Amino acid sequence: MPATPSKRILIRGGQVVNDDRAFLADVLVENGLIKEIGEQISISEDGQIEVIDATGKFVIPGGIDPHTHFQLPFMGTVSIDDFYIGTRAALAGGTTTIIDFVIPPKGQSLVEGYHQWRKWADEKVCCDYGLHIGVTWWSEQVKADMETLVRDHGVNSFKMFMAYKGSIQVTDSEMIGIMNTCREIGALAQVHAENGDIIDENQNRLIAAGVTGPEGHPQSRPEEVEHEATKRAIMLADQTNCPLYVVHVMSKQAAREISDARREGRVVFGETIAAALASNGSHYYDKCWRHAAAHVLSPPLRRDPTTAGALMDLLSNGDLQTTGTDHCTFNSEQKSMGKNDFRRIPNGINGVEERMPLIWEKGVRTGKLDVTQFVAVTSTNAAKLFNIYPKKGRIEVGSDADIVVWDPESCSTISAAQHHTAGDFNIFEGMTVHGGPAVVITKGVVAVRNGKVEAVKGSGRYLETNAYSPAVYGRINQRAKIHKWEKVERS
Amino acid sequence: MPATPSKRILIRGGQVVNDDRAFLADVLVENGLIKEIGEQISISEDGQIEVIDATGKFVIPGGIDPHTHFQLPFMGTVSIDDFYIGTRAALAGGTTTIIDFVIPPKGQSLVEGYHQWRKWADEKVCCDYGLHIGVTWWSEQVKADMETLVRDHGVNSFKMFMAYKGSIQVTDSEMIGIMNTCREIGALAQVHAENGDIIDENQNRLIAAGVTGPEGHPQSRPEEVEHEATKRAIMLADQTNCPLYVVHVMSKQAAREISDARREGRVVFGETIAAALASNGSHYYDKCWRHAAAHVLSPPLRRDPTTAGALMDLLSNGDLQTTGTDHCTFNSEQKSMGKNDFRRIPNGINGVEERMPLIWEKGVRTGKLDVTQFVAVTSTNAAKLFNIYPKKGRIEVGSDADIVVWDPESCSTISAAQHHTAGDFNIFEGMTVHGGPAVVITKGVVAVRNGKVEAVKGSGRYLETNAYSPAVYGRINQRAKIHKWEKVERS
Amino acid sequence: MPATPSKRILIRGGQVVNDDRAFLADVLVENGLIKEIGEQISISEDGQIEVIDATGKFVIPGGIDPHTHFQLPFMGTVSIDDFYIGTRAALAGGTTTIIDFVIPPKGQSLVEGYHQWRKWADEKVCCDYGLHIGVTWWSEQVKADMETLVRDHGVNSFKMFMAYKGSIQVTDSEMIGIMNTCREIGALAQVHAENGDIIDENQNRLIAAGVTGPEGHPQSRPEEVEHEATKRAIMLADQTNCPLYVVHVMSKQAAREISDARREGRVVFGETIAAALASNGSHYYDKCWRHAAAHVLSPPLRRDPTTAGALMDLLSNGDLQTTGTDHCTFNSEQKSMGKNDFRRIPNGINGVEERMPLIWEKGVRTGKLDVTQFVAVTSTNAAKLFNIYPKKGRIEVGSDADIVVWDPESCSTISAAQHHTAGDFNIFEGMTVHGGPAVVITKGVVAVRNGKVEAVKGSGRYLETNAYSPAVYGRINQRAKIHKWEKVERS
Amino acid sequence: MPATPSKRILIRGGQVVNDDRAFLADVLVENGLIKEIGEQISISEDGQIEVIDATGKFVIPGGIDPHTHFQLPFMGTVSIDDFYIGTRAALAGGTTTIIDFVIPPKGQSLVEGYHQWRKWADEKVCCDYGLHIGVTWWSEQVKADMETLVRDHGVNSFKMFMAYKGSIQVTDSEMIGIMNTCREIGALAQVHAENGDIIDENQNRLIAAGVTGPEGHPQSRPEEVEHEATKRAIMLADQTNCPLYVVHVMSKQAAREISDARREGRVVFGETIAAALASNGSHYYDKCWRHAAAHVLSPPLRRDPTTAGALMDLLSNGDLQTTGTDHCTFNSEQKSMGKNDFRRIPNGINGVEERMPLIWEKGVRTGKLDVTQFVAVTSTNAAKLFNIYPKKGRIEVGSDADIVVWDPESCSTISAAQHHTAGDFNIFEGMTVHGGPAVVITKGVVAVRNGKVEAVKGSGRYLETNAYSPAVYGRINQRAKIHKWEKVERS
Repeated sequence: MPATPSKRILIRGGQVVNDDRAFLADVLVENGLIKEIGEQISISEDGQIEVIDATGKFVIPGGIDPHTHFQLPFMGTVSIDDFYIGTRAALAGGTTTIIDFVIPPKGQSLVEGYHQWRKWADEKVCCDYGLHIGVTWWSEQVKADMETLVRDHGVNSFKMFMAYKGSIQVTDSEMIGIMNTCREIGALAQVHAENGDIIDENQNRLIAAGVTGPEGHPQSRPEEVEHEATKRAIMLADQTNCPLYVVHVMSKQAAREISDARREGRVVFGETIAAALASNGSHYYDKCWRHAAAHVLSPPLRRDPTTAGALMDLLSNGDLQTTGTDHCTFNSEQKSMGKNDFRRIPNGINGVEERMPLIWEKGVRTGKLDVTQFVAVTSTNAAKLFNIYPKKGRIEVGSDADIVVWDPESCSTISAAQHHTAGDFNIFEGMTVHGGPAVVITKGVVAVRNGKVEAVKGSGRYLETNAYSPAVYGRINQRAKIHKWEKVERS
Repeated sequence: MPATPSKRILIRGGQVVNDDRAFLADVLVENGLIKEIGEQISISEDGQIEVIDATGKFVIPGGIDPHTHFQLPFMGTVSIDDFYIGTRAALAGGTTTIIDFVIPPKGQSLVEGYHQWRKWADEKVCCDYGLHIGVTWWSEQVKADMETLVRDHGVNSFKMFMAYKGSIQVTDSEMIGIMNTCREIGALAQVHAENGDIIDENQNRLIAAGVTGPEGHPQSRPEEVEHEATKRAIMLADQTNCPLYVVHVMSKQAAREISDARREGRVVFGETIAAALASNGSHYYDKCWRHAAAHVLSPPLRRDPTTAGALMDLLSNGDLQTTGTDHCTFNSEQKSMGKNDFRRIPNGINGVEERMPLIWEKGVRTGKLDVTQFVAVTSTNAAKLFNIYPKKGRIEVGSDADIVVWDPESCSTISAAQHHTAGDFNIFEGMTVHGGPAVVITKGVVAVRNGKVEAVKGSGRYLETNAYSPAVYGRINQRAKIHKWEKVERS
Repeated sequence: MPATPSKRILIRGGQVVNDDRAFLADVLVENGLIKEIGEQISISEDGQIEVIDATGKFVIPGGIDPHTHFQLPFMGTVSIDDFYIGTRAALAGGTTTIIDFVIPPKGQSLVEGYHQWRKWADEKVCCDYGLHIGVTWWSEQVKADMETLVRDHGVNSFKMFMAYKGSIQVTDSEMIGIMNTCREIGALAQVHAENGDIIDENQNRLIAAGVTGPEGHPQSRPEEVEHEATKRAIMLADQTNCPLYVVHVMSKQAAREISDARREGRVVFGETIAAALASNGSHYYDKCWRHAAAHVLSPPLRRDPTTAGALMDLLSNGDLQTTGTDHCTFNSEQKSMGKNDFRRIPNGINGVEERMPLIWEKGVRTGKLDVTQFVAVTSTNAAKLFNIYPKKGRIEVGSDADIVVWDPESCSTISAAQHHTAGDFNIFEGMTVHGGPAVVITKGVVAVRNGKVEAVKGSGRYLETNAYSPAVYGRINQRAKIHKWEKVERS
Repeated sequence: MPATPSKRILIRGGQVVNDDRAFLADVLVENGLIKEIGEQISISEDGQIEVIDATGKFVIPGGIDPHTHFQLPFMGTVSIDDFYIGTRAALAGGTTTIIDFVIPPKGQSLVEGYHQWRKWADEKVCCDYGLHIGVTWWSEQVKADMETLVRDHGVNSFKMFMAYKGSIQVTDSEMIGIMNTCREIGALAQVHAENGDIIDENQNRLIAAGVTGPEGHPQSRPEEVEHEATKRAIMLADQTNCPLYVVHVMSKQAAREISDARREGRVVFGETIAAALASNGSHYYDKCWRHAAAHVLSPPLRRDPTTAGALMDLLSNGDLQTTGTDHCTFNSEQKSMGKNDFRRIPNGINGVEERMPLIWEKGVRTGKLDVTQFVAVTSTNAAKLFNIYPKKGRIEVGSDADIVVWDPESCSTISAAQHHTAGDFNIFEGMTVHGGPAVVITKGVVAVRNGKVEAVKGSGRYLETNAYSPAVYGRINQRAKIHKWEKVERS
């Protein structure tokens, strides 16, 4: 049963922060939307309005996590956080919108996959959500499905996997077809950038050498394997004039590649994730198997301790735009499927709840990001790219009342004992974070208050995302328009 | 006599463009401010309101040119466009705010210089203007003057010259002092980045070799001379935790250096200019002396024909933020002071009028910039950096009604015969530009309509710019706060 | 019939140049070998000795062209210079060793291909030659063939094609297998680096758009297509600890990629070719179809006019090591097979004769290379990499008497009217080159004198090249020895 | 009294290694020179010849350390290793030639300084040595002195200090004068690249903040301070067409800058030192003051643990050419002059004895360098640059018999208890090195055998180094010859 935004909310005296500036103002919420923003909004306090004191706090757009995998069927099991638990955890951490991935197996209809995911999600989500669609194979039918999804189902992004050989990996030829289609229908192409062929080779060599533990995972897919695929994807996207969004940029090399491409005018965007910004690859070498296995995701965390800071610098500079989580949790029992073979450890980590506090801690408190940049990389940029701006991602009259009252003075320690996901491990265990959500409002309803989550199952809505996002296609369309092969007239 | 915003203006049916998005809306102007923005604003058309039809056009924030030199005493003469002619030309091109430079000679009081410039400008300007202050020498008095200017006179930026040996060039030691002071008072340090010592050496060698023409100018200060100084300034700024703004980035190398620094998290910003985006250094080798001399400015235009496109790509990517002009015109007679010695050719070019159409032509029409980026690099970014946002640089309720109705379908050819500056040469002569201002409104008064300029002398106001611009000092302040030298305790 | 080195030769008074230094000395040749080097060698001039006056000239090792395709069956025809004409032209230009490519079609035995090429070459070559083997497919049989060729037939290099989709292109998986094998048998992996899939796509789009002329060729395979593949090959080679040699580096981007990899300690080498150093891609847009088509090779010449100089700088710096030609000539009639479809134009250009004079002209005379570097990049480096050093590539007692007396003061103009190849076009037509071979000695026999070529058909010998070239495998072997996957012991 | 090479030496059965290749051969030494190299040299073993068994060992050119400071008056004291102890330690480590620096104070005659150093060195040196001259000020007299030194005293290199403000630091203007002079007289300009002005500022701030310990040293001169000066020096050298040699490159950033410049064709060379290749800047933060202070040198060691490996990669790639030591030892008492102020800690470390074993350990055993590259970077490259090749730096008939029989199987642990310098601390204490000199021969006399040093005081000779080193000036001279300012003829 969806929540009813039964009454109005007035957020008093906070510093409203958007991606362009911060200013002192009250914010009035009504019917799930932002009704008014102003200094000293006067209201009749008649019991029909809840007043939240935000003095000394920031009033920011609810976070958008553009990369989650709730209840994902993967590697023989299903990720343990379903759409209820997952979105509840998201809210607990100040995130009010998530975008999940439909990943149909090779051969399955994309549209069918979409409906399956909708079915799973709609009845459970506690906040709004959107869907990216994974394209794991290629045919005329796939192309038709992509068109249908964009036209009829509010999808505007499709993801390709350059890794996972023998399963969902696509070839360069297939990527060309998919990218051409994306451009034709105004969608944003996404890519998991790792060279699956060399990973497969390395995995076999590692296993043959007796390296079966989680430390084999990062060794099978070192940084240059991610770097190479990133470059290749960028080149293919440029050649097809298709906009590209690289998901989970995990390494300095890959991030620099994106930065290089952007310098050359390429329409390419990069997302990194909370884990990359706050953890690192040393954990794979932990003596405790469970600890090490809990960190397994792909691409892996990097052992270079300067990675996290460098990625944050690129978020600040604008060369990376968004921060997701790749939240895809498996509990220890599930992880132990790979006890004797790291290739079988289900890939996935947590983060949807911790993302915003961690970025505040590692970004704002270090002086790498100012508060407007914090809003940009946790919310606004994703809203722009996936074309849900300014409905999402901005404190503005008329926007959805997805609002977080952010307390910069709060202090807490992350722990599996307290977190809201179903997993029995937290890769950020023991980290102290300053700054966190005091109040979280989703569509005009308070979902978090004083650390207590009051999320309502099924209250979220599927977000239709329109094609031709201006932030993505503004340049692409013009380029398509003026592009002309050069032809020499000869007698 | 200042203009009276005697009546209201309604701009109907245009596509309002800010740096974050574009949307169809009407804009209502009243008392010099933006009063309302909305779909189908209803008014009583009582003669008290002027309605401007913007159908099919963009409604954008008036341009901000952060780099002009009107009536500048320089190299033994005075630049020919005074604050009246200069701001009038600015308006003609869609620019409604300029920021000029006070450049006191070595030894002169900065405050005195400031008052001099105010005197020159106040009675003539047709649009709002701000002032940067050149710091051409260093002493305790200079430091005190900087403090005074920030505290009492609305100044928040100071410029250093690394070139012009023997005249206004400052040493590294002096720069350290100036940068320290900027940080202490919340100002933005600006730098003209060229190594004056090697330029002096090269000039002497060129003259000795008989190369006295304008082609000697670029040869005396090649790209790496700009590049080196840019790097040095960035290093000094980083070491002193002082934010840095590099004016007139003229070369790929210097721009890449800024980009590199930003990747590393440096708080550095880059401005390029219209001439760099639309012209190039081949003109110095023109057979016509007058033509060649007309292009002399420092740093010079670059002969590498890929420079302009590369700079535009960096504006698009966000590694460069602003576009100025270094508008500083001298007529042919003045230029001829250097007839027999290129070192004596007064440095300066035009651009304040052509900047916006040229950036549209070279940026938007080529697919390098989308319309929101166009607004960002011609207006919004400068407003943010110099802390006049959102008063300037945004179409928003409460902002100054500095508005341009931009016609993307217009087409005109630049020519000295038609331009509004006093110069007898236009370095963009003959270029066709699509896109241009149909109507220009400054502080609620129409200043340009149908190509006709109705600027009112003295109607502009001096813009107080506050210190500690959030876009600049958000990160700097936090860094200052957490910076600690590492100290090892030893027994 | 092979030539008999019937008498001795004394080269008097020249400046002997090796890759490490230059010094005045006489050189005595006997029985095809260098017998003595010294100041003022005294001999009895008994008619049994020919004395060549080298005063004012350089005495350098004969050039080595590591990249030719003589009488290659390709694209439905056969390149027009056979091993006689080709090696004769090589000698005419100061090159005394060539290394050609066996390219068996997919499915054919590599050993069989090798014998075929030996048969074609042995009876015709006028100078020594070696063979690289193209690996155009992959199977256990191919692997066995590679082992046989190295063990029994003096082969130490194998080339893979990342382009030519549907014909000889190999996949990443196949490359991994081939690279692993190369490392196991001490061979050097070579790669033609272009992404064949996107080229195929572009070709189809160009043809569909009616661009059928030679200008379609470079447009279908722009610089980034070469760049991407270069990076990918380097990554795969690094992951397999296989040394890599990138043939015909044609672009700044690809060259920089190699340079970047070398900085990181990768064992990767780069070859560029005469055409890239002395011509450019503007020719594809020539109004004359024949002229344009004559320049078609892959990767194509680049339109960026700074390419040639940049590649030469990298030869000077040591980031590129060798200079070949990709000499593979087709006459105009053969080229016209692609009259209506640029995809059918046989790929290939001339250069084996012009290589050394052009590199002198563009490298030494410009101050980019000193004379020792000239020797290094035209001869010594190739000898080292392909393990024929110091038999080839050095003026040293005991080395083969492959010697060129180089006249730095000569001056000639390249022209199809005078060249020694069978082609009816010369892509360097009209270029004036200073510096050229006054005398060319191959294995102790004068083959060129006063511009007259006296080559003897069949006098050359097949060069056995041993595996595990120290210049290549010195580091690789040590790395293989110390490499260990990291294994965490857990309880 | 100089040693008499009283008898001949035959080195049997070793692997002779030069920078171009390795081969099995005997080496015969006579009268201080290499007399013969060949397989199985036959001799009459008559007691007049000493036979050294080199089976299983490498026979390499004696090391050349181009950067030592023996008995240097500096910072109020004198470095403790005089020319006897210093060269004796050098021999102990396989180095048979050192090049020291004359550093006259500002105002002193360079020629006078030169004579002073000769006086100090000649009577003490146990191996050959050369001299660089520091140019710490600038005047017509200095210029004349430079000319005299090159013409009459066998000097071909001059060093400038961009750091040490208020003492020996020179300005950009002075550097231009010095570089111009270097080019005019065929000398190689050297530079200590750090920005002294910002260092001075940082030092003052650190002291003011109470950071007086050795950890203040690296904090006052971080990596970018070295980087900036390196770039500036390269630019000035390029503008003056002067070849540049950057001494003690200590950081990745500076090294990359050199690499970048070389890619662009700049004639610039880089030297790194043993300490940078085998230690790092963590030691400055050691709890033991003596330990920390012992590591103080400028530029400092870097804390980034990837520095050493990266510098080694660049030696392998050829972007850095030489390895010195900056050997300049002070004992603990001397170091304690800076007990309360790190600015007063005499700058200097050891290394002349450990250099070659450390480079073997960190370079060859890691697979980063092959044996020929080891010879290049420890000996040959320096010989070429400073124009003493092939007299030094090569095993060749006629070369000086400066030979090391290198045992790759040896293993020892570095310790102040055993080292041969006078210092009471060894910054490499406790490091195990595999590989080391079994026998060291200087000018035909065995100086080290079985770890026992038999150096003879005063037996070394001053090495005259000629101007216009071909390795340096080959390209410079040609560039000077063809350089022409472009002049436009106008009517």
